[in-house]
Amino acid sequence: MTGLSNSCRVTFLPSGRQVTVEPGIPVIRAARQAGLHINASCGGNGVCGKCRVLIKEGVVDGGISDKLSLEDVRKGFRQACTAIVTEDTVVQLEKTAGLAAGQLGTEVPERHRAAMHIFDIDELQEEGIFIPPVEKFFLELPRPDFNDRQADAGRLLRAMDEQYDERHIHISHFLLKRLRRVLRDNDFRVTATLARPVNRRFRSRLLNLQTGNWTDRNYGIAIDIGTTTVYGQIIDKQTGDILAEGGDYNHQISYGEDVISRMIIAEKPEGLQKMHDLVTRSINNIIDSLLEQKRVDRDEITSITLAGNTAMTHLFLELEPHNIRRSPYVPVSTMFPPVRSTDLGLHLGGHCMALLYPAVSSYVGGDIVAGVMGSGMYRTEKLTLFIDIGTNAEIVIGNREWLACAACSAGPAFEGGGILHGMRAGAGAIEDFGLDPVTLEPMNITIGARPAVGICGSGLLIIVATLYECGVIDQRGRFNRDLSTERIRKGRSGYEFVLVWSEEAGIERDIVLTEVDIDNFIRAKGAIYAGITTLLGEVGLNVTDIEQVILAGAFGSYIDLDSAMTVGLLPEVSPDRFLYVGNGSLMGCRMSELSNHIRRDVVKTMQKMTSFELSEEPSYKDRYVASLFLPHTNATLFPLAIERRQTMERLAKAAKTSS
Amino acid sequence: MTGLSNSCRVTFLPSGRQVTVEPGIPVIRAARQAGLHINASCGGNGVCGKCRVLIKEGVVDGGISDKLSLEDVRKGFRQACTAIVTEDTVVQLEKTAGLAAGQLGTEVPERHRAAMHIFDIDELQEEGIFIPPVEKFFLELPRPDFNDRQADAGRLLRAMDEQYDERHIHISHFLLKRLRRVLRDNDFRVTATLARPVNRRFRSRLLNLQTGNWTDRNYGIAIDIGTTTVYGQIIDKQTGDILAEGGDYNHQISYGEDVISRMIIAEKPEGLQKMHDLVTRSINNIIDSLLEQKRVDRDEITSITLAGNTAMTHLFLELEPHNIRRSPYVPVSTMFPPVRSTDLGLHLGGHCMALLYPAVSSYVGGDIVAGVMGSGMYRTEKLTLFIDIGTNAEIVIGNREWLACAACSAGPAFEGGGILHGMRAGAGAIEDFGLDPVTLEPMNITIGARPAVGICGSGLLIIVATLYECGVIDQRGRFNRDLSTERIRKGRSGYEFVLVWSEEAGIERDIVLTEVDIDNFIRAKGAIYAGITTLLGEVGLNVTDIEQVILAGAFGSYIDLDSAMTVGLLPEVSPDRFLYVGNGSLMGCRMSELSNHIRRDVVKTMQKMTSFELSEEPSYKDRYVASLFLPHTNATLFPLAIERRQTMERLAKAAKTSS
Repeated sequence: MTGLSNSCRVTFLPSGRQVTVEPGIPVIRAARQAGLHINASCGGNGVCGKCRVLIKEGVVDGGISDKLSLEDVRKGFRQACTAIVTEDTVVQLEKTAGLAAGQLGTEVPERHRAAMHIFDIDELQEEGIFIPPVEKFFLELPRPDFNDRQADAGRLLRAMDEQYDERHIHISHFLLKRLRRVLRDNDFRVTATLARPVNRRFRSRLLNLQTGNWTDRNYGIAIDIGTTTVYGQIIDKQTGDILAEGGDYNHQISYGEDVISRMIIAEKPEGLQKMHDLVTRSINNIIDSLLEQKRVDRDEITSITLAGNTAMTHLFLELEPHNIRRSPYVPVSTMFPPVRSTDLGLHLGGHCMALLYPAVSSYVGGDIVAGVMGSGMYRTEKLTLFIDIGTNAEIVIGNREWLACAACSAGPAFEGGGILHGMRAGAGAIEDFGLDPVTLEPMNITIGARPAVGICGSGLLIIVATLYECGVIDQRGRFNRDLSTERIRKGRSGYEFVLVWSEEAGIERDIVLTEVDIDNFIRAKGAIYAGITTLLGEVGLNVTDIEQVILAGAFGSYIDLDSAMTVGLLPEVSPDRFLYVGNGSLMGCRMSELSNHIRRDVVKTMQKMTSFELSEEPSYKDRYVASLFLPHTNATLFPLAIERRQTMERLAKAAKTSS
Repeated sequence: MTGLSNSCRVTFLPSGRQVTVEPGIPVIRAARQAGLHINASCGGNGVCGKCRVLIKEGVVDGGISDKLSLEDVRKGFRQACTAIVTEDTVVQLEKTAGLAAGQLGTEVPERHRAAMHIFDIDELQEEGIFIPPVEKFFLELPRPDFNDRQADAGRLLRAMDEQYDERHIHISHFLLKRLRRVLRDNDFRVTATLARPVNRRFRSRLLNLQTGNWTDRNYGIAIDIGTTTVYGQIIDKQTGDILAEGGDYNHQISYGEDVISRMIIAEKPEGLQKMHDLVTRSINNIIDSLLEQKRVDRDEITSITLAGNTAMTHLFLELEPHNIRRSPYVPVSTMFPPVRSTDLGLHLGGHCMALLYPAVSSYVGGDIVAGVMGSGMYRTEKLTLFIDIGTNAEIVIGNREWLACAACSAGPAFEGGGILHGMRAGAGAIEDFGLDPVTLEPMNITIGARPAVGICGSGLLIIVATLYECGVIDQRGRFNRDLSTERIRKGRSGYEFVLVWSEEAGIERDIVLTEVDIDNFIRAKGAIYAGITTLLGEVGLNVTDIEQVILAGAFGSYIDLDSAMTVGLLPEVSPDRFLYVGNGSLMGCRMSELSNHIRRDVVKTMQKMTSFELSEEPSYKDRYVASLFLPHTNATLFPLAIERRQTMERLAKAAKTSS
């Protein structure tokens, strides 16, 4: 492979449209980003052979398949789906079968993604708040003599005070038992591990004592306990760096994909213990792997911070979740005391404390509080809409002064549930999509450039949006029966659109999107949009007041903003006001590991977060019903979406005329 | 037995001297208290038959033996050693063989004991500081509903705040796991057990939760861990009453009577564990017996407060005592964190916390701090000398403003060690003594009115003092070889005085006091007196500044004050300025169990106590050498002692003249 530059300019001919992309992405994605359509019905791996392009300048990796002759390859033809951009490149689009002539180089509307927000460790350092909640101190104590016969414990505390200004320190009985020996093993030179309290008026706790100087080996672990996946990081508390990162399935998944079914199991005899053990196994797998990767000793981990939704947190801590799912939805606790990590079955040292993110309510959990922290929402002056879309969508509105939050149940559509060919985001899932407005031939882009096997959440969103923009479906999600394409047909469960023919697919059936799927999707997006507007209404605000939107969670990273507005999932806000925080929960955990000041902010933030119960708000139902259209019953709320549809119609007409 | 009145007047004829005593004491003690001599060489149980008296009015219990004929008994003759006072009585003393005629009714100087100081629970109540560190609260929580969906934990904390003004409460993970169920078992009516912190700025801890109202069952245990004996009390925290009291040997004693030998064992492999286990067995025996006596359930004990010297505390907590006995004598700690009682192997509930009295230094331990509390010294304005005499004597000087303390090694003489016929205070030990100044016939009074088997500490003191007062020994403790009595003789190890002839003793040898014994005694008392005066010197004071003397420990209760001053063990202070606190350490523990305010005072007191190391004070050695006389090289320091000796000489002369 040629050396990868930092970014590559890809120029598409004949339109001359240019796009700057990171090296390593397929040419077809660069085209998609440039707003250009390339026929690509199989999704990837060159099965259909339709996405042939000519590389005129620059070198691409791969993109060769048996659909191309040796002669073609020599000339510079490649499959756009598997040809990887490595440097500045000029690509000639071909007029292939089924491609509307006028589309070659036509400027269709651009598509936008949210900009990535990355937590900046330097900020903490600049503000002087990079003081880990668990810190190590090296001490050289004066040896006892006749003029100084203070007890060992008092001597240690005196040194902490004199040398580091640390007072009010609790020494446990466990450490007192080892104290005499540890002090004398290396002539009163010791490293003290100190855990600071969140509330400054309380005491610090001495967690560990080591002979000699070990201050350069102080590591922490951050864990996001997701319902599906658990992610972890190992963090160097001296530098703030992430040393390694990894994930594992939440092993509870074998007892049900959703939270409710796991809570039901937890109510059975031994069930709670079982749920605890399963998620702990996932966390331990991650810990084991991270430690091994970085050759960090288990005992060098001095704290672990975890965040999860309220149910996950309860199951992990073995708190009875019974009343979380029963009206009036009361958890055992929203604040969780630090727990010795060994008491939770974690493979860490006896001195290592596990710190759990506090929750707001049964349905706005510690993962959301961590996300509000990790995204920086807790300190912004901008009126911000924070949204984490999954089976439940958690919504937070506010800024550094106040925060209102709610959860609404969207159903599993965005995670591929309730959709005939729906699937989780994995290899072969259609995650991006385009449509030739004239021929209605699709450009399917799959995860891993593999032949398509299904549709994931972000794919579903963009497919529905594109079908709507191109007039294939109407406001209510019904197919336009007048269109002359064999891709629209009546299937077993009503009308459907064939995205991938079985011979080009990675499965042995046609991959279709049905009207029932679209209906499920509309109900999911409607619930979320109604949730956003109801919560805005509760605090007396409108969509137009929103200055910033933060998207959290896995779905947020792949979301096509224009599609989300076209279908009325998200309110119309300028795309440059969107931020994506990735795993904001994990980021929040890492921040807490590095700054006790931030841990105090966590509590303050959690206390600011006022929880609203949407299901009890009478206006919610009305808003929901009004949202069961594309984009909405009140189209004036989505002027850009309407404009986009009109533009596409014009383009299609123009193409037909020119062909 | 006739009904016992509260106090009885005993009148002795022919002198007419009267004394008021508690019912239940033998007539011979009443005589002793009245300053009258009755010949009684066996010590008790009527073996020698010499203490015959005539009961002229009133009824006594017992006092009959085969030394009295039936006729004598009918006439009203009794043995003074075993005849028990039950009501107002008139006793005629007999002129028996060996009794100096003039002594019948002669007014010898009175003897004094310290007045008993009893901790007054009402004082705590009046001052409003009767707030136990561990208290129970009954709560009726509002049931969760749609308008109040606070989490269980928050709901509980809110109620503690609203109903009892208790804030900043930590709930452990352990309790969170049970919380949901406990709240709902009896419709949100629960009893919360709250442990308050000593320092108000820290958090309280929720120790336990019970379904229903259990506030009337809140008990505590106080334990004094003595080197020889462990004492305990069970306390009703609602009323402050002592429900039951009991003791057990410190089972460590099987590994050595003194602290040093036990510390040596603790340094051997498993030794520390063994020492911990043994003392814990003693404590558990006491707990088991107290609970059974009062039918209190183990789980109803919410806290236990213990005090012991620094070595005992270290062994109990399994803290390595190695450096306590090695220069410069540094303990592991002087402050001890609360420890879960089950972590210490105590037979108590998992929620019950063990609270240990803090120490000042390696040789001024928690028992002394507890004694300073229990005696009320910590709050008095009077300049007070507090002294606990044992193998080590701990001395505290000061008042509510300041406290100076030190320990000095007296050797085991006061506990019967290093004395040929020395023994611990037990049945048959001579504990009180008188001497006919002319005939030099003794009045031996033993513990339990049993034939004498040895001499305990308080007996030794009074014997030496009496021998000195009567001119039997000189200032240096040497016998006056000129006296014509067969009781002074040369024994195996030099001159000795026969206290009890073997035929009258409870052992098959003569019970004697040797010059070597007296020498050991003088060194012990000299060490203590030198300690007192050195410590006074350190703070720039004199004996004459002392306004109050508090005697602590078992020895303190039996000490004859006049004897103690005669021999120069204690400085000459008016006897009415002496207080005796009994087990002041146990009393301090009880006070701490009842008042968190007092626990704060404990820390303040302990911090006020400045420890001095006498062995390093150059003047100590000089003061010690000067104290190796009876009463002292500088007799002007003991004018009353000198006067007492002169009085006795006059009395003896007068008696000889009149006979």
